[in-house]
Amino acid sequence: MKNRIQALKKSFEADEIDCFIVANETNMLYFTDFLGGTMLLAPKTDENVLFVHGTNYEAAKAEAKNCRVRLLKRKEDVLSKVAEEIKNLNPKHAGFDALEASLYLKMKNALKGIRLESKDKLVWELRRIKDQTELGKMRKAAQLTDEGVKVAVETIKSGIREYEVAAEIEYAMRRLGSEGVAFDTIVASGVRSAFPHGGCTDRKIQKGDLVVLDMGARYQNYRSDLTRTFVIGKPTSKQGKIYETVKEAQEKAFQSIHEGVKAKDADGVARKLIEKEGYGKYFVHGLGHGIGLETHEQPTLGPESKDVLKAENVVTDEPGIYIIDFGGVRIEDTVLVQKETAERLTKATCNFEIH
Amino acid sequence: MKNRIQALKKSFEADEIDCFIVANETNMLYFTDFLGGTMLLAPKTDENVLFVHGTNYEAAKAEAKNCRVRLLKRKEDVLSKVAEEIKNLNPKHAGFDALEASLYLKMKNALKGIRLESKDKLVWELRRIKDQTELGKMRKAAQLTDEGVKVAVETIKSGIREYEVAAEIEYAMRRLGSEGVAFDTIVASGVRSAFPHGGCTDRKIQKGDLVVLDMGARYQNYRSDLTRTFVIGKPTSKQGKIYETVKEAQEKAFQSIHEGVKAKDADGVARKLIEKEGYGKYFVHGLGHGIGLETHEQPTLGPESKDVLKAENVVTDEPGIYIIDFGGVRIEDTVLVQKETAERLTKATCNFEIH
Repeated sequence: MKNRIQALKKSFEADEIDCFIVANETNMLYFTDFLGGTMLLAPKTDENVLFVHGTNYEAAKAEAKNCRVRLLKRKEDVLSKVAEEIKNLNPKHAGFDALEASLYLKMKNALKGIRLESKDKLVWELRRIKDQTELGKMRKAAQLTDEGVKVAVETIKSGIREYEVAAEIEYAMRRLGSEGVAFDTIVASGVRSAFPHGGCTDRKIQKGDLVVLDMGARYQNYRSDLTRTFVIGKPTSKQGKIYETVKEAQEKAFQSIHEGVKAKDADGVARKLIEKEGYGKYFVHGLGHGIGLETHEQPTLGPESKDVLKAENVVTDEPGIYIIDFGGVRIEDTVLVQKETAERLTKATCNFEIH
Repeated sequence: MKNRIQALKKSFEADEIDCFIVANETNMLYFTDFLGGTMLLAPKTDENVLFVHGTNYEAAKAEAKNCRVRLLKRKEDVLSKVAEEIKNLNPKHAGFDALEASLYLKMKNALKGIRLESKDKLVWELRRIKDQTELGKMRKAAQLTDEGVKVAVETIKSGIREYEVAAEIEYAMRRLGSEGVAFDTIVASGVRSAFPHGGCTDRKIQKGDLVVLDMGARYQNYRSDLTRTFVIGKPTSKQGKIYETVKEAQEKAFQSIHEGVKAKDADGVARKLIEKEGYGKYFVHGLGHGIGLETHEQPTLGPESKDVLKAENVVTDEPGIYIIDFGGVRIEDTVLVQKETAERLTKATCNFEIH
């Protein structure tokens, strides 16, 4: 693993930061390759210290990288201990990634005379650009998801319950080495498909239903995200038109993605096409989101986004049309942004119609 | 569902709170029975408002209880909108459950002249006491977990990989109606069993191994948590002694649990017994934790806890002994605290030895 804490420290200079408190568990995982720390202190020049409770202490010593592991004893309070270490460093300016308000106020009080500021942005500047190690894991997560789609196509039929479909997909991905789902699998059928985050119920899938399947595998803590929509039997002309519109919007948006493109412009490509077909008001969310250690990360792809896409961003491309009391269609891939083009990491191809 | 927001409002009086901002998504779920809101505003006397982005707006309108649903339009910022509503109410004192520091500082700035304070405690006073609806769901989650243990006993054997065991357990629970796991299943075998949160790898389980299995199902958003430990083949005398020590500690602690008992005293029952057998320094965590919509909730059962157990708390009872380069043993049940006794919600019985 690249020393990502060193990269963080390089970014301290512009903001004159002397030390950084990492309190978000995913950020701690990103920097140390270990999940289970309580707080990570990264001083500009001194050694990095990961504070860990007894439960995870031995595992941290065996696994955490680029830091010294410091046991939090039973009576010790993490905030006091971190504040103590910081004061020993005599800094002027401390940054942090995320602190809940009451913790922040206590820390501020403990660090009187030191400027304490949210500098989450510095971490995201790193995390949104995936390195080769990360991309390897994300490719594997995407590949596991594609395998899940094959099972979905074999499983979905009239009469099966939504959660039964999810069970088969998740089992297949798990058997192939997925650590679990990236997020709760969505199998939203019939009128429920009009809810973009419709979850998964015991509803029986019926002939004529639209079925939105939104799923992802997790591999070495990295995630993928894919959506396919099916119709059970022959689609009505309205179902067919909506499906083709979403499919074209997703493809056109994909074609538009590369380094330097404004995220809102990629969204605009899909949105304009959907608006032109008369479904603009039914595309109720943004085009997509960054993905990596978390399912929803930076950058954001939507009409209000200020992000500009960069090479090695990994984002979703997922336009949708949702009509209440009728149903919904969404098509989504996890996409790697490159210098002059983009690459779909999820590649599953399947027919709209399931018979 | 009981109107839990009303119960929250009753608790406003003692602290002279005029309105409450719920920003934690699990708390929003607790109060509205809907997962996917952005912020919930609960004024002392006026209507409750759930702010929801476009993606989840229609689902919120169909499902969210005890509140009016307010769409957050594309250009609208949740913080400004909530602050606006609060100012219209002209309150003196606003409470909140959890706000990240930068959001807190913005909110404070937007609400100049209004006292803004973390009052998380008020929500936890409610959430730690489970009502009958919640207990019904928790019983079901526990029962699904017990079914998973049966599959584990049939599956675990020399030669199988840790993640393959997890796959079979999770699949069985999912088929029976679990919405997914309460947390990542732990199947930690051999020396890895000495890491309390050892996860699940592709290691092949071997004869002579200790295998710690820590797992839970999720049902209607409620969770259960159970651990069993197995040995593959005949245990050594040391393995046997450690197992019997943990088993007795878990049972004695269980017997000690009822309303009015100090959480640290329940921990002490298990800890003293383990210390007496000479394994005190290897019991590296507290006895347990509350569980419900989240796997780790209040109250906390440990030597430093200030909590006193109350009827309708649901907590775990999970002593363990972990010896580096040897292995670990943990036994855990999800337990309902009652007036004069306690009830195990997870009930799976199984032998230590697997042949």
